Amino acid sequence: MADVLDIAKRRGFFWPSFEIYQGCSGFYTYGPLGALMKMRVENLIREYYMIHEGCLLVEAPTLTTEDPWVASGHVESFTDMTIECQKCGEAYRADQLIEEKTGKDVEGLSLGEIQKKIKDNKITCPKCSGVLGRVYDYNLMFKTYIGPGKRKVSGYLRPETAQTTYMPFKRLYELGRRKLPFGVIQFGRSFRNEISPRKGLVRLREFSQAEVQFFVHPKQKNEHPKFSVVKNFKVPILTKQDQKRKQKPKMIKIGELVKKKFTNEFIAYFLARSFQLYLQMGIDPRKLRLRQHRDDERCFYSKDTWDVEFLSDNYGRIELVGIADRTDYDLKRHMDLSKQDMKIDWNGEKLIPHIVEVAYGIDRPLFCIMESCLREDRDRIYFTFPPKVSPYQVAVFPLVRKDVLPKLAREIFETLRREGFFALYDETGSIGRLYYRQDEAGTPYCITIDYDSKKKGDVTIRNRDNQKQIRVKIKKVPEVLWELFEGGKFETLGRLIKQTVGKQKSHK
Amino acid sequence: MADVLDIAKRRGFFWPSFEIYQGCSGFYTYGPLGALMKMRVENLIREYYMIHEGCLLVEAPTLTTEDPWVASGHVESFTDMTIECQKCGEAYRADQLIEEKTGKDVEGLSLGEIQKKIKDNKITCPKCSGVLGRVYDYNLMFKTYIGPGKRKVSGYLRPETAQTTYMPFKRLYELGRRKLPFGVIQFGRSFRNEISPRKGLVRLREFSQAEVQFFVHPKQKNEHPKFSVVKNFKVPILTKQDQKRKQKPKMIKIGELVKKKFTNEFIAYFLARSFQLYLQMGIDPRKLRLRQHRDDERCFYSKDTWDVEFLSDNYGRIELVGIADRTDYDLKRHMDLSKQDMKIDWNGEKLIPHIVEVAYGIDRPLFCIMESCLREDRDRIYFTFPPKVSPYQVAVFPLVRKDVLPKLAREIFETLRREGFFALYDETGSIGRLYYRQDEAGTPYCITIDYDSKKKGDVTIRNRDNQKQIRVKIKKVPEVLWELFEGGKFETLGRLIKQTVGKQKSHK
Repeated sequence: MADVLDIAKRRGFFWPSFEIYQGCSGFYTYGPLGALMKMRVENLIREYYMIHEGCLLVEAPTLTTEDPWVASGHVESFTDMTIECQKCGEAYRADQLIEEKTGKDVEGLSLGEIQKKIKDNKITCPKCSGVLGRVYDYNLMFKTYIGPGKRKVSGYLRPETAQTTYMPFKRLYELGRRKLPFGVIQFGRSFRNEISPRKGLVRLREFSQAEVQFFVHPKQKNEHPKFSVVKNFKVPILTKQDQKRKQKPKMIKIGELVKKKFTNEFIAYFLARSFQLYLQMGIDPRKLRLRQHRDDERCFYSKDTWDVEFLSDNYGRIELVGIADRTDYDLKRHMDLSKQDMKIDWNGEKLIPHIVEVAYGIDRPLFCIMESCLREDRDRIYFTFPPKVSPYQVAVFPLVRKDVLPKLAREIFETLRREGFFALYDETGSIGRLYYRQDEAGTPYCITIDYDSKKKGDVTIRNRDNQKQIRVKIKKVPEVLWELFEGGKFETLGRLIKQTVGKQKSHK
Repeated sequence: MADVLDIAKRRGFFWPSFEIYQGCSGFYTYGPLGALMKMRVENLIREYYMIHEGCLLVEAPTLTTEDPWVASGHVESFTDMTIECQKCGEAYRADQLIEEKTGKDVEGLSLGEIQKKIKDNKITCPKCSGVLGRVYDYNLMFKTYIGPGKRKVSGYLRPETAQTTYMPFKRLYELGRRKLPFGVIQFGRSFRNEISPRKGLVRLREFSQAEVQFFVHPKQKNEHPKFSVVKNFKVPILTKQDQKRKQKPKMIKIGELVKKKFTNEFIAYFLARSFQLYLQMGIDPRKLRLRQHRDDERCFYSKDTWDVEFLSDNYGRIELVGIADRTDYDLKRHMDLSKQDMKIDWNGEKLIPHIVEVAYGIDRPLFCIMESCLREDRDRIYFTFPPKVSPYQVAVFPLVRKDVLPKLAREIFETLRREGFFALYDETGSIGRLYYRQDEAGTPYCITIDYDSKKKGDVTIRNRDNQKQIRVKIKKVPEVLWELFEGGKFETLGRLIKQTVGKQKSHK
């Protein structure tokens, strides 16, 4: 069986960083194909939120002073209970050791209770059977110092972009012309000093995010202006009640989620939109579900949180996006600590807006796209990436590397690039070899220039998925390609989704 | 006089980070206009190097283990001589204190010699006149620890992207199909723990870079395949000899630089290309010069380094890009430390390629664009940003906020966005007010929809720079805009440059 991780490494999508120095878990480097694909996934999210939701863009440093994380509660509470082997020094998450040994969920237990369970269950180091030490709270933020000498101050690598968007809230509110609701999106790296990450792109110590913050009137969380557009969209839902009753996800309409008071319109709306974005990216909808956080797992700052989760063959359940009603918690905390007024004047009323956050990971969906799109035939391996996220949209080859063919092929290639396609030119192999390479890169269409191209002015366009070929006039190539890619445009997304959800049902 | 920094803050281009907590020098946050503009500056560089130079894209973590910086020499040598006031605790760069006091250049002196100069010149704390302590080497890398407990390892925030591109050199060489020369570009954040940065976007502790690494056959540094394209391009040059002889920059042809053996073809080629990129961005060419590093200031890893420098009204001389012949220094060092083979097999010969690096800052040119493009008339302030880098390319307004006008304006706006323009819709003010806002945002064209638009199907397009207006059929608007923006396309850059250099001369 073709293995995503193997292809990723071999074809240069991504690989473990610092390889030449034996690496360090939790760090990955994107190679040429992966970096392009990451850019395109980010563009898709950026385009959606900036153009269709009118969000403002903001970009803050990833290294910050200590204050924001005191305010947010991360300095105090962003911890994992950790235990180290006294013999070999290996560190573990204490709760995971207990869960692995007993099969029981220990979410919500105190440090003392966890310590007791380690003792009662006689848990030792899984690696060397050594005696384990004391359980302690380990803060997951990377710490450093800013400035030299006596005047240096504590610095932290941000564990989320969110606080770096909240701090300038008043500025952003003014720049957005004092409207509610209004949204702000921030792209960038965040960092978590995981204890022992072993899940590739899915658990990184440095990762990329796209976090969207909607500032909403506290009484208008059930008044999303475009809610009606998504209310009949069906999605697989797992509420916290379902989880208590050990039920499976149910396909229900987004509108029902709100009608039955499972959540508010803002959360429901962005659950639908996120689900649709993942469909656009080519993630297998049969592996997705929308799960509400249980009360015992929800973060302290949130009143209601939902994840879109993907079931990975390699890593089990993966959270792709977290959508949370953070209430006025964060802005209030910043107001308390900074003594700066975070209130706004809303028709004569002083109020602190509530925040609904839509927090996307970037690395994880990229991996899920690869897993969802990998196909293996008798004689080839290929990725069925949608043209919106494939590293390249089209590749151009001369049939042979002689006569006028390479020159003609290059001309067509240059035209396509000028027209805005992500195009690639290759002449370093037989035509079969070139197709094979592009199949493994997930390039949807290949264009071959042969001797007839010179004579008749036409070329072959080959479809990656069914390997069928059509003959197209050179002049018509850009137009034909745009038409082929049309399915990925927002205007026609409705149709695309109906088809996909139709399929989704029939597979159940 | 209109002040760039004031407008930047007020209009949300950028502002000091952590403002609500009294800030921390060396950190800036990009607001909606600045973040868009930054994205566009990055896109311009990305497009140029990926499309026109065929570079591969790569993206590595910004937090790394210690090894790469031991190999690169940064752990040992990436230091500033620092001195602290024993009374108030303020820290200073020792060389700068001496230069400020004596007016003499102390580049290249040892720690002991610097200490002696401090003493001999009786230098005290500029702030409180307190006694200064011992001079010491202060490493400019931010340090942290990766992982918990006894097994934790040292981590550094990268001070440059370069090493993170060099480490996977062998993979990249394979992915690039074993060609020389080949180029790799990496975008991302880098970090320098500056002692006391006080120059806004120009000296940041966290900054954005676009570093391009060309791997070149050691004997082919004078064989750049496209050198002839730039050889007649004239640029203001200041060689190291010129500096010794205290001469001013001279306008000479790029070809002459190589003919007279001032530098090699690779460096000369990218000096020209960088200069051209800055012209495209709208940076004032009369304020640019190409300066070669003197032997006493050049980094230890480089055999020859050139900067493109901008003369800022706010901050003096600013380095915008550094182009360096790093030879085989870095790859050799990685080979020595990692014991991994960095040699390639080149027609039977084993060799380590040389690296010519083109290291762009992103924050600095953004600032220089703003300074270069700021204009003030009797009744308005505006930025003459080229449409390629302006936050928005076009704004759409209804003349008044009633009847069918807002609806019609929104339709035109949506069409423009679909066509790929960076467009903005605004209806929250009088037409004069709306123009004024867009002038300050540097939006090149504004489209106004009035009552005639409904009747006659046409709209007004207003030119930001001369405030002239033309009447255009609604259907023709996208086409007219593309034509107006055409001047910014690479295909016509030749013409553009001739004009600009023409102007440049006549201004001298």
